[in-house]
Amino acid sequence: MSGHEPRKSFGSDNHAGTHPAVMRAIVEANAGDAIPYGGDPWTEHATGEIRRLSGAQGEVYLVLNGSGANVLGLGLLLGRHEAVICAESAHINTDECGASERILGAKLLTVSAPDAKLTPELIATRLAGRGDEHFAQPGVVAITQSTEYGSCYSLAELRAIKEFCDANSLRVFLDGARLANAAAYLGCTLAELAANADVLSFGGTKNGAMGVEAVIVMRPGDAVNAPYLRKQHMQLASKMRFLGAQFGALLTDDLWLRNAGNANAMATRLAVGLGGIPGVEVVYPVQADAVFARLDPAHITELQRDWTFHIWDEAASVVRWMAAFDTDPSDVDAFLNDIAATAGAARA
Amino acid sequence: MSGHEPRKSFGSDNHAGTHPAVMRAIVEANAGDAIPYGGDPWTEHATGEIRRLSGAQGEVYLVLNGSGANVLGLGLLLGRHEAVICAESAHINTDECGASERILGAKLLTVSAPDAKLTPELIATRLAGRGDEHFAQPGVVAITQSTEYGSCYSLAELRAIKEFCDANSLRVFLDGARLANAAAYLGCTLAELAANADVLSFGGTKNGAMGVEAVIVMRPGDAVNAPYLRKQHMQLASKMRFLGAQFGALLTDDLWLRNAGNANAMATRLAVGLGGIPGVEVVYPVQADAVFARLDPAHITELQRDWTFHIWDEAASVVRWMAAFDTDPSDVDAFLNDIAATAGAARA
Amino acid sequence: MSGHEPRKSFGSDNHAGTHPAVMRAIVEANAGDAIPYGGDPWTEHATGEIRRLSGAQGEVYLVLNGSGANVLGLGLLLGRHEAVICAESAHINTDECGASERILGAKLLTVSAPDAKLTPELIATRLAGRGDEHFAQPGVVAITQSTEYGSCYSLAELRAIKEFCDANSLRVFLDGARLANAAAYLGCTLAELAANADVLSFGGTKNGAMGVEAVIVMRPGDAVNAPYLRKQHMQLASKMRFLGAQFGALLTDDLWLRNAGNANAMATRLAVGLGGIPGVEVVYPVQADAVFARLDPAHITELQRDWTFHIWDEAASVVRWMAAFDTDPSDVDAFLNDIAATAGAARA
Amino acid sequence: MSGHEPRKSFGSDNHAGTHPAVMRAIVEANAGDAIPYGGDPWTEHATGEIRRLSGAQGEVYLVLNGSGANVLGLGLLLGRHEAVICAESAHINTDECGASERILGAKLLTVSAPDAKLTPELIATRLAGRGDEHFAQPGVVAITQSTEYGSCYSLAELRAIKEFCDANSLRVFLDGARLANAAAYLGCTLAELAANADVLSFGGTKNGAMGVEAVIVMRPGDAVNAPYLRKQHMQLASKMRFLGAQFGALLTDDLWLRNAGNANAMATRLAVGLGGIPGVEVVYPVQADAVFARLDPAHITELQRDWTFHIWDEAASVVRWMAAFDTDPSDVDAFLNDIAATAGAARA
Repeated sequence: MSGHEPRKSFGSDNHAGTHPAVMRAIVEANAGDAIPYGGDPWTEHATGEIRRLSGAQGEVYLVLNGSGANVLGLGLLLGRHEAVICAESAHINTDECGASERILGAKLLTVSAPDAKLTPELIATRLAGRGDEHFAQPGVVAITQSTEYGSCYSLAELRAIKEFCDANSLRVFLDGARLANAAAYLGCTLAELAANADVLSFGGTKNGAMGVEAVIVMRPGDAVNAPYLRKQHMQLASKMRFLGAQFGALLTDDLWLRNAGNANAMATRLAVGLGGIPGVEVVYPVQADAVFARLDPAHITELQRDWTFHIWDEAASVVRWMAAFDTDPSDVDAFLNDIAATAGAARA
Repeated sequence: MSGHEPRKSFGSDNHAGTHPAVMRAIVEANAGDAIPYGGDPWTEHATGEIRRLSGAQGEVYLVLNGSGANVLGLGLLLGRHEAVICAESAHINTDECGASERILGAKLLTVSAPDAKLTPELIATRLAGRGDEHFAQPGVVAITQSTEYGSCYSLAELRAIKEFCDANSLRVFLDGARLANAAAYLGCTLAELAANADVLSFGGTKNGAMGVEAVIVMRPGDAVNAPYLRKQHMQLASKMRFLGAQFGALLTDDLWLRNAGNANAMATRLAVGLGGIPGVEVVYPVQADAVFARLDPAHITELQRDWTFHIWDEAASVVRWMAAFDTDPSDVDAFLNDIAATAGAARA
Repeated sequence: MSGHEPRKSFGSDNHAGTHPAVMRAIVEANAGDAIPYGGDPWTEHATGEIRRLSGAQGEVYLVLNGSGANVLGLGLLLGRHEAVICAESAHINTDECGASERILGAKLLTVSAPDAKLTPELIATRLAGRGDEHFAQPGVVAITQSTEYGSCYSLAELRAIKEFCDANSLRVFLDGARLANAAAYLGCTLAELAANADVLSFGGTKNGAMGVEAVIVMRPGDAVNAPYLRKQHMQLASKMRFLGAQFGALLTDDLWLRNAGNANAMATRLAVGLGGIPGVEVVYPVQADAVFARLDPAHITELQRDWTFHIWDEAASVVRWMAAFDTDPSDVDAFLNDIAATAGAARA
Repeated sequence: MSGHEPRKSFGSDNHAGTHPAVMRAIVEANAGDAIPYGGDPWTEHATGEIRRLSGAQGEVYLVLNGSGANVLGLGLLLGRHEAVICAESAHINTDECGASERILGAKLLTVSAPDAKLTPELIATRLAGRGDEHFAQPGVVAITQSTEYGSCYSLAELRAIKEFCDANSLRVFLDGARLANAAAYLGCTLAELAANADVLSFGGTKNGAMGVEAVIVMRPGDAVNAPYLRKQHMQLASKMRFLGAQFGALLTDDLWLRNAGNANAMATRLAVGLGGIPGVEVVYPVQADAVFARLDPAHITELQRDWTFHIWDEAASVVRWMAAFDTDPSDVDAFLNDIAATAGAARA
């Protein structure tokens, strides 16, 4: 059976498969028996490495997917009476079928944010009603790094948010489904990013893993009920070694950074190439692995005959083109050729 | 790195790794890009096969683990005001950290049940208060096949429960984390088992998969909100092809039945061997892949120095010894030798 | 002990006490024993009257307060995977401490709405993602009549929403905490209002009751689990007769309409009087019992020394002045005098 | 309209109406305007008195009914991952339609308890699995005083439970819907009872109030999110003064104790009288206001023609006869006469 698409998908970084080194690690972990639920050496190794790299004083928990990581992370920081401040564009608001509301009972206080990035000023707009029992109390600020629009918070921007939150009794949760892409773009360490959050997720799946995310708890006090919540949230894998092995491979020789770096570079290559094609407008800064572009609806239709990608905003005629760890320069160039031909033909 | 235990674990069927054929299928599925979230051919093939084998008129949903399958399955059948009747020993009651209560808000109405098996008579004991707003209304009966005590419902027993439930406006959820073991023991088809449930899970993980379970919805009407609940429950895998591939391998040439058959046979071999060892008493019928035995606490301690297994009930001095798809007769015999030596030495 | 404020409060219609006729009915209901939980004749009479007046084919449930009515009403209409479309200004979004999210697990899809009123066009902006498992599925549209800004939907506006919802597989929940004020303003029947909802609340508390609201279910099919949800939501009163008696009094000789009519008239009298005071701007149409006005912050401060009212929007210097069933023309005139004096003095 | 039953009900203490002094206080509180949501002097007085009488260092919250008090009280003490240990007979387990599971997501770990009373030994039976992520973690022990079977914990029994819980990192929630009856029976103060709980409810409704309960938080730290949870749980009354006034009356001149004392005395009078009637067996100690008796099913049927009461256990032919604050000795004697006549006639 072959299910792969005829041409490299620009649909999402999760259209890609598993990086060969990750797959090798999975195969190698399949040796005899292992204590389940995380009592195995692969999990111990992976979580130890993540703790070391992130500077976490708390604990690290492997979970099964991104929504699982986000809901667990938020749950560790939220009181039952508290709400989450996030951008309207936040994945937790737009792409998780209301899991935070449904599983945590949490209210999301959304903010319209340019480039999908919160700022202290934007956060401050949702702080009304503190101390008033009629209002869900803002307790956690959730940010996504890199963002849903392919941008990255600078370390200074992250620090400003963290300092504002610390000064205002708010905790910071960072959705790091594409944290590697941010680290690669910023040229910074995982610890520098993690220092600006109380709890964060660290994504493997979109970066060459088969399916694993880590929830990093920076302070021990926030991890007290984490093992139980992970289980209640149905995020505890029994054959956990296969999750640990994936992160083990990603963390070896900086594969996580190299994978993210390639995806970023391919998005940038695409954006640069688009610069020479009339009728195609890149609408957000291209910093991570995604390019958002506006082009003629008819051209979108024509391109989708051969290429896989998402229409992001049909009304605005904006598409999302996304690179992955295994996108090749030749994939980008072939795509650019077709985009140029489509736009040029229509123009001619 | 090597994490495998020195001797074959009798701890649980999830101490075992991934069956080589399943691993091969995973590796082969890693070819190029694929549509995520289940839009890939491996998932289509696997769910189609499960639908065919189970006779489901509804749909089949792959999820990430057993608790995820149970909570989703119950959620499809339960009204917000309804309760679940189950055995006290049910996995959903004892081993999922209260996920059904926490995620579904469901009350569990437990019944003390011999061999962990419900009967119409036992179910009837929890039907008081129907129509009275002060009582959570019994809506679903949850049974486990094979059971948490290693026994199996006969088809006649299942049918009696289903008929009772149909006659009493109750739906049947079947926790089939070890359904393959029951099919192998009973020598019946998946469809014969599924016909006695409204929704059931069908476990892969404990039967040689790396980590995948299926939720089978027998009637289309019960599946209406299933995709959304799966996502809300954080059970939707993005690189779903790797889940589909696992079931694809298990369903090829009846690997699922052969794996379960071996595990069952090894448990039976162990039980038969124990019959010749004084001081060791098998306390439940051995029908699936588990043996529950009572022996001297001091012998348990000594055996645990070399062998991995769970003490099931410390007060009663009962242990659980569990075989797996890859347990070898020589593993059983070596274990029996040590048990005999321990018991005999103590006796001498 | 005397807790009443020195001058008539313009803070809210719930600063007022209980209408004397309602209080008399409560006292009269205190005769001997009565079957609890609604099995009493006062409750039977009140719910029967409300059913008759509203034209409901379903049932009527008395509950303890407005949040209780809203959450129960929404819960009857919402699937577990569904979301509620409402105005940002909706009471369920801004004033109930996130109860809908917490108790129902429901996501609120908010819309910025002028005059706090939804329209088919505004509702349509939140219908993206239907059929896509990543999105909480819009299932219910929640409107408030009269609105949180003191405006009323016309019957034509309500009908347009209901028709749009019917055509788009959406149910309509109407928050009628101040439904009486809308009926009084529109000069219409309860049935004409109720016909445009699937489930609605009908408020007593803000209209002269001591504390009671009704949840009206228009179709029998939507009421199946209502008694159980009311109990689970902790909204079932044991000495229910005292709730029934309150509505019995309100529904006698149209007291509910007369109370609302007075409150509306007093708000209008206030608004008309403000028209002659320079420096005070009424910012929303005055249709029900509230007047929203913008005036100098210093004047607000001065007026609050003697009068009780809420600052609605500190940044915009907008206050809310609210009349009640027992506001007297002389109260309004005294208040107007002070407003004029304050504004004039500052001006002089 | 007259809904009162022809003869005094022995159905429940909530068949009775409102004590005249409570009703007077309600009427008197209806004077002019008052700040809503508890900012009124009646609420301030009542909660201050309850705090003083109970010795609470935390806060006191008035709520609308018993289920509301229980769920709020448990919610203040429970972590999201924690379970409640309670007797099978506990009201929270049997009579609240699963509200604790539904609203809090909490698992109830039930214990079969004679006289409906827990002991350290019984609690200890449900402490398995602490520290194991597969088990909902016991966090709170819930006891009812007086119990659902009409018995009372002695102060020594309460102290033993509290000491056991303190030593085992468990918190104690006391369901005091009938706490007054226990105080009256034991001849102790509210503070002596409250000292053995971390959070407790203190019931008014079953003791002559119209509808009000208090949640008493003994330590300030446990009350941090109480106002928000009360609102989320839909238990915040807007015209709170009418709740405060009820407790104000009950706490004046020990009316709460006198009401409870009368109910207890009438139950005892009934039990003593039954002692002389052959064929009627009192099955639980009569300490509070309920008598549980076993008698011939045919006699039950005949008595129910004229008298109102509940069949507690149809299979065991056990009824519950309950006195109230307004039960008169002549009511008891008339009832005894009929019971004797029924039993005697059948015997003759």
